[in-house]
Amino acid sequence: MPTRHILPLPGYTQTIGRLVAMLTYARQTTLAAVNGLAREQLDHLHDSRSNTIGALLAHVAAVERVYQVITFEEREPSTAETAAWSAALTLADEGRREIQGHELAFYTDELLRTREATLAALAQRDDTWLEAPLRMSPELNAHWAWFHVFEDEISHRGQIRWLRGRLR
Amino acid sequence: MPTRHILPLPGYTQTIGRLVAMLTYARQTTLAAVNGLAREQLDHLHDSRSNTIGALLAHVAAVERVYQVITFEEREPSTAETAAWSAALTLADEGRREIQGHELAFYTDELLRTREATLAALAQRDDTWLEAPLRMSPELNAHWAWFHVFEDEISHRGQIRWLRGRLR
Repeated sequence: MPTRHILPLPGYTQTIGRLVAMLTYARQTTLAAVNGLAREQLDHLHDSRSNTIGALLAHVAAVERVYQVITFEEREPSTAETAAWSAALTLADEGRREIQGHELAFYTDELLRTREATLAALAQRDDTWLEAPLRMSPELNAHWAWFHVFEDEISHRGQIRWLRGRLR
Repeated sequence: MPTRHILPLPGYTQTIGRLVAMLTYARQTTLAAVNGLAREQLDHLHDSRSNTIGALLAHVAAVERVYQVITFEEREPSTAETAAWSAALTLADEGRREIQGHELAFYTDELLRTREATLAALAQRDDTWLEAPLRMSPELNAHWAWFHVFEDEISHRGQIRWLRGRLR
């Protein structure tokens, strides 16, 4: 059972710590939702317009990679990055075609590597940075961006739970 | 487009304000996800084990009511409250049987009334309260509880988007 206290955390400024607590809780529930799934279950398509659970996991990691670039590097993803992440970001036909054949560890390893980079970068920043408008996108601040990362993850986790309940 | 800044808000202590910004953003996306749905769409069952979109909206409001009781009144829901909220909380057969026949405004009015009560209560509390363990449930604090309210909402919003995409 993940901790059910949202609090500042050691190693982060106060508001970043609370944010990390939320990011962490959300991730724990995602990992719990896919625990034990086999490759064929990760590749299963519920219907022709669905995304596989594997593709949704790849999407969660890719969204986090994009927001690392936007918030920590304050730039748009490069052409190479966009190409690498495109199937996972857009899902749909490209995701259905390209994201398959992987064991669960393929997805969870990428989630882990991605999250390690996020936490290392957040540990070097402070609450003033967190709440300032982003230079490249002043219509959002980094706090919203990282809220959105776990918000999008939770939304897809809801779909993953629904899809998992219908695996044969 | 809802604001994409998470910041302290006037009328609340700082951390409560950021929490309210997240609660508000999540709610705006839920309302956007159901905008314009007719009664028969709110009552549509995708398959025999699904919940209708209407029942999911009722669930979101009921979960918020429960956490009002737990965090603001620091008590378990009463027998009468449990009975009133049971179908929406448990969903499944009881929800499928009891929650139907309503227009969208039935659900959105209840969401609005519930949220007004939440915000009024949060405006009277402070960040020390938010982060202290709950007296009746010290394994959680109020910040987690209210994070969980929007986390559960977002998870079901993900399902609502999926279900709405498959309405005929």
